[in-house]
Amino acid sequence: MASTLELLEEHRLFGGWQQRYRHLSTSMNCTMTFSIFLPGPKSSTPPPVVWFLAGLTCSDENFSVKSGAQRVAAELGLVLVMPDTGPRGEHVANDDGYDLGQGASFYLNASEAPWASHFRMYDYINSELPALIAGNFNVSDRQAIMGHSMGGHGALMFALRNPGKFSSVSAFAPIVNPMAVPWGQKAFSAYLGGETDAWRQYDSCWLMQNGGAVLPMLVDQGDSDQFLADQLRPEQLEATAHELGYPLTLRIQPGYDHSYFFIASFIEDHLRFHAQHLLVP
Amino acid sequence: MASTLELLEEHRLFGGWQQRYRHLSTSMNCTMTFSIFLPGPKSSTPPPVVWFLAGLTCSDENFSVKSGAQRVAAELGLVLVMPDTGPRGEHVANDDGYDLGQGASFYLNASEAPWASHFRMYDYINSELPALIAGNFNVSDRQAIMGHSMGGHGALMFALRNPGKFSSVSAFAPIVNPMAVPWGQKAFSAYLGGETDAWRQYDSCWLMQNGGAVLPMLVDQGDSDQFLADQLRPEQLEATAHELGYPLTLRIQPGYDHSYFFIASFIEDHLRFHAQHLLVP
Repeated sequence: MASTLELLEEHRLFGGWQQRYRHLSTSMNCTMTFSIFLPGPKSSTPPPVVWFLAGLTCSDENFSVKSGAQRVAAELGLVLVMPDTGPRGEHVANDDGYDLGQGASFYLNASEAPWASHFRMYDYINSELPALIAGNFNVSDRQAIMGHSMGGHGALMFALRNPGKFSSVSAFAPIVNPMAVPWGQKAFSAYLGGETDAWRQYDSCWLMQNGGAVLPMLVDQGDSDQFLADQLRPEQLEATAHELGYPLTLRIQPGYDHSYFFIASFIEDHLRFHAQHLLVP
Repeated sequence: MASTLELLEEHRLFGGWQQRYRHLSTSMNCTMTFSIFLPGPKSSTPPPVVWFLAGLTCSDENFSVKSGAQRVAAELGLVLVMPDTGPRGEHVANDDGYDLGQGASFYLNASEAPWASHFRMYDYINSELPALIAGNFNVSDRQAIMGHSMGGHGALMFALRNPGKFSSVSAFAPIVNPMAVPWGQKAFSAYLGGETDAWRQYDSCWLMQNGGAVLPMLVDQGDSDQFLADQLRPEQLEATAHELGYPLTLRIQPGYDHSYFFIASFIEDHLRFHAQHLLVP
């Protein structure tokens, strides 16, 4: 499905280009914005793509300006795609809370009113945007995915539900077990209705336990993160991984919090981890 | 002069700490905010300080979150100090333009009403804040200074007016000849009155030509910078440097604009340049 891309911004950095586009999304039934980093040419073959899914209250711009990822992506020859976190606009349903509605899609397809008409982020991130990227940019079909907090949940969830699609997955402070924590319970209740089987398809702990795709997985978590005990609980994922022999590396980083300063400190490790799996001959 | 520092924020990053403080400034006659990056210990001796002065509309936070400088500062063992760009608050004079008043101090001591009561940034950056840093943090007395745009003007101007104070100076897209361009003429007229000898003391081209301090100077300038021809004109500084045999390295970076993406792309070069002069035994 062809879609017209409107270039909103373009900046040279680290020998490549940071661009920002708007387009009309058929999945979302509204315009969507994303950012992309295109490294300078490193080889004659099209570069692989690394997706970054952002957290609550963020847009495509937070990671673009705060992570420092482009420096490493330029060196390794990786394209970075940074989608927005959900539908936006006056005509899009919203909520007073920062953790529901615009900026808080949880990367799912909503089934409940008033959300179902625009909150179709699972389809948008899983199908529509990848096709748009493949159709408009010179990229290989090899890809990896990562994210932060709500976007860490998204990255793990997309990877676990799509065997063979991603070479590797990583996350910073992800919500690994949304069915069991306040953020996830609030969002899933609103978007998907009362607790049902539908919730499970968006819960990384459940997915890993129940036949989710097996691929290299790296998770970093700061131990001074204010959301660690109530919302994140990476030990739940680690316990499941340990039980199954799943290839998860969980690193607890002493003194680090939930901010982009934490992401910036470890983004190089994540991109090198992905490159190791993406760039094999 | 002792001053109480109020810690506003603290984040671990790259093995060091990013902190943000508020304090009552005697020079400015109001509260001021600054950010500081303290690297993890690299040696038994106190680390040197690199100052970063930001540009129009910025605060201490832009460079803190967008430059990626802390990664390199952590590696090299450098303290970064990021002051705000001027006085702020409801009681502080302001202007509707983005290039005059709050966020647009031009790092000078204003003599004219209504600015003179708070716009004393020359004294604040040159004397009060360095004493505060030296009195409250474990730092050496070796220091370098850099800045962007209006802050590049500031960095060059402070270095040229203070022989022996800085080991080196650098700038990204600096306003090198404010007396001759619209931004500088508007600001100097308002803060200092009609064109007088007072303007010259804040003009880097004039200062270099007229016995300014000689020290290693690095300037990066993007050739796609929208302000290059009208406001920045680095060729004026280069011509003066060439005439005098002044140790200026001016690099024109093809395709780069005026944004922090430009700064992020070259900050590593600047910090290594400063370290080369700061860290000599």
